[in-house]
Amino acid sequence: MGAKRPDRRAFLKGGVTMAGGAALGAAAPALGQQLPAPEGYVKGTDDIVAYGERSRFVNSVRIAHPPGSRPSPDEWGKVFHVAAPLQDSVGMITPSSLHFVGTTRGSFVPEIDPGSHRLMLHGLVDRPLVFTVEELRRLPSVTRPHFIECAGNRSSPRHTTVQETHGMTSTAEWTGVLLSTLLKEAGIKESGTWIVAEGAEEIKGASSIPMSKAMDDCMVAYGMNGEAVRPQNGFPIRLLVPGFEGIFNTKYLRRVKVVDRYYMTYNDYGHLNRDPDTAALGYQIGPKSVITRPSGGQQLPERGHYEITGLAWSGGGAVGKVEVSTDGGRSWNEAQIQGTAYRMAHTRFTYQWTWDGSETVIMSRTTDEIGQVQPMRDEVREFFDSSRVPGQDNSIQPWHIASDGTVTNAIT
Amino acid sequence: MGAKRPDRRAFLKGGVTMAGGAALGAAAPALGQQLPAPEGYVKGTDDIVAYGERSRFVNSVRIAHPPGSRPSPDEWGKVFHVAAPLQDSVGMITPSSLHFVGTTRGSFVPEIDPGSHRLMLHGLVDRPLVFTVEELRRLPSVTRPHFIECAGNRSSPRHTTVQETHGMTSTAEWTGVLLSTLLKEAGIKESGTWIVAEGAEEIKGASSIPMSKAMDDCMVAYGMNGEAVRPQNGFPIRLLVPGFEGIFNTKYLRRVKVVDRYYMTYNDYGHLNRDPDTAALGYQIGPKSVITRPSGGQQLPERGHYEITGLAWSGGGAVGKVEVSTDGGRSWNEAQIQGTAYRMAHTRFTYQWTWDGSETVIMSRTTDEIGQVQPMRDEVREFFDSSRVPGQDNSIQPWHIASDGTVTNAIT
Repeated sequence: MGAKRPDRRAFLKGGVTMAGGAALGAAAPALGQQLPAPEGYVKGTDDIVAYGERSRFVNSVRIAHPPGSRPSPDEWGKVFHVAAPLQDSVGMITPSSLHFVGTTRGSFVPEIDPGSHRLMLHGLVDRPLVFTVEELRRLPSVTRPHFIECAGNRSSPRHTTVQETHGMTSTAEWTGVLLSTLLKEAGIKESGTWIVAEGAEEIKGASSIPMSKAMDDCMVAYGMNGEAVRPQNGFPIRLLVPGFEGIFNTKYLRRVKVVDRYYMTYNDYGHLNRDPDTAALGYQIGPKSVITRPSGGQQLPERGHYEITGLAWSGGGAVGKVEVSTDGGRSWNEAQIQGTAYRMAHTRFTYQWTWDGSETVIMSRTTDEIGQVQPMRDEVREFFDSSRVPGQDNSIQPWHIASDGTVTNAIT
Repeated sequence: MGAKRPDRRAFLKGGVTMAGGAALGAAAPALGQQLPAPEGYVKGTDDIVAYGERSRFVNSVRIAHPPGSRPSPDEWGKVFHVAAPLQDSVGMITPSSLHFVGTTRGSFVPEIDPGSHRLMLHGLVDRPLVFTVEELRRLPSVTRPHFIECAGNRSSPRHTTVQETHGMTSTAEWTGVLLSTLLKEAGIKESGTWIVAEGAEEIKGASSIPMSKAMDDCMVAYGMNGEAVRPQNGFPIRLLVPGFEGIFNTKYLRRVKVVDRYYMTYNDYGHLNRDPDTAALGYQIGPKSVITRPSGGQQLPERGHYEITGLAWSGGGAVGKVEVSTDGGRSWNEAQIQGTAYRMAHTRFTYQWTWDGSETVIMSRTTDEIGQVQPMRDEVREFFDSSRVPGQDNSIQPWHIASDGTVTNAIT
């Protein structure tokens, strides 16, 4: 009994279990008597019973993006993003607490009472409509996993981890009403060829979306991973525009206006295009994938068997196949896909590999269901300067493995 | 500016934005100056930037089960369960913070350092093996959604909400290593026909499982909904025995022993059976479903269109179809299934309904992929007293809707 570890939390709170607990532990308790917990147990609080927490041994966190920027800027209006810890990811879902965030307001978040929030549909429609959140929840719903990705999500030689190179994308299981359900109820006039979606925030997050996309798979989501959408991700409702760049997925959605042309807004800073008819057509995220384990900053402790695992996705549809190379791109082997490859959703892939201890480079390549193939970095460079927005960079991410097992970013 | 709402959190903390903020808001700030947030914004803390939280307007919580028991018993050894708020559920996934919990230790949870935890495979094997969690993560993994359900999860006339009638089941996206992968590595002797799985906790959670099931789809899970398994659900690793009663899904898994017969353990209190060869065969959860919205305690505000939505599942495989009745069981209509109906996973169904304002009873019925049909309550009663363990109750749950829109539990 002398070596018994006291309850850590009770100890920190100056609890009563110390000496008395040690004595009680040796005695046979009367029926119903409160017993001290055995070594290694902690007692949950009422709050943790009501809504659980992760282990104190798990410390995977989001980080400011780009790397090196301040983690929690106080300045209003300062662009501020946080990236998801993909190096620790498992499965398809990103937990809502770790979903990446892109914003223009520092760490400020609109605090919206869902009871007073409204969504208005107006413009070139037969019947303008206003919905409460409760009214939306009475309408036909869909549940679908979808990724969202910031257009600026790209690797740089300065980045050391997969959180830095690719952490500005996440997948959640979204639940909501198809935008087409609402637009059909409002009735679109013949001249209505675009929509503008606006959020309840200072910069509004307005984006122009072609009607063909609006009537296809766009969703007004109130649910995220089985509960309400989180404040950092648009509570109480956000727009999902599956496969389009992240900035289209308007948070805090309050207004959808049907219009007859592309409207230039604040969001277009990175998307200026002389031809308004094609301005939106480049917004589809290309086929992409990245190995999340082993990845930059991790370490292989010894030669032997390793599972190589990662995420693949495409704005063009479902992932068709994923290939992995463990010899720097000379040969490619098909990886296994875990579960259903959903349209515009992260898809977990795995590949079994025995490392012989030699220096090498590993990488992954995805082909989507419409046949688009993820390009090598040199191929992307032929088209644009991939170091800056505009233009996406969906190129293959190589990880170098040194003979001592150290894993580093291999792009140049 | 006089009506401007102060930042609630800053106000509660005695923050500085009150009067000064109102004055600054009217002045044009110099470049880089810290601006007060506009009305309705809150500033995230570093903790919330690193690992997000839900809105303060969302207060869906787990509750003690059975209803009326104490929410956080202090007594060690007191049976204590918490049920998930299914009335607020959307989609297939239960967020890990709301996953139901069944335990025998009050609200105490083992606090395990994953670095020192081990899993041992021994008994009737060729090569006894011990794994660290890191070693498990190098092995071939699978990611699959699976429900877990407490065998005692059943409706009673005393229950008022779906959380009370059916809240002791949840689905997570689990990631881990198939138990068959580990058993093949250890090599099973010919006499090894059962396994006993044991957890690192006082009562051990030992359960006997037939080898045919162990070699089929059992999983040693380290991942849950995209991050580490939560402490209340078995951190760092737990066993999944898809479709079997909850008690088989051993938390804090530390030992799998291959044996030559069924072993009677603490867990068998509800499963005593004179014939050991068939003792485990009743453990498969029957085909089941429940309407989660509208459900007991909710209210239809007016006549008109409603989506009826709920969850369906079966220990026998994937859900084949779900039917909904809105006239007390006289007629049945096929519901729509959202996404993939995975084997042994909650499956979200939806059914569109126009309520004419009349008193009625709504209910759902599932048929699984092997043809098992969820029974009516009277049919279940023919076999056993459904008010107590042992014996599962997978009967159809009816909800009564009064002409004023009040929804109540309609079982008798």
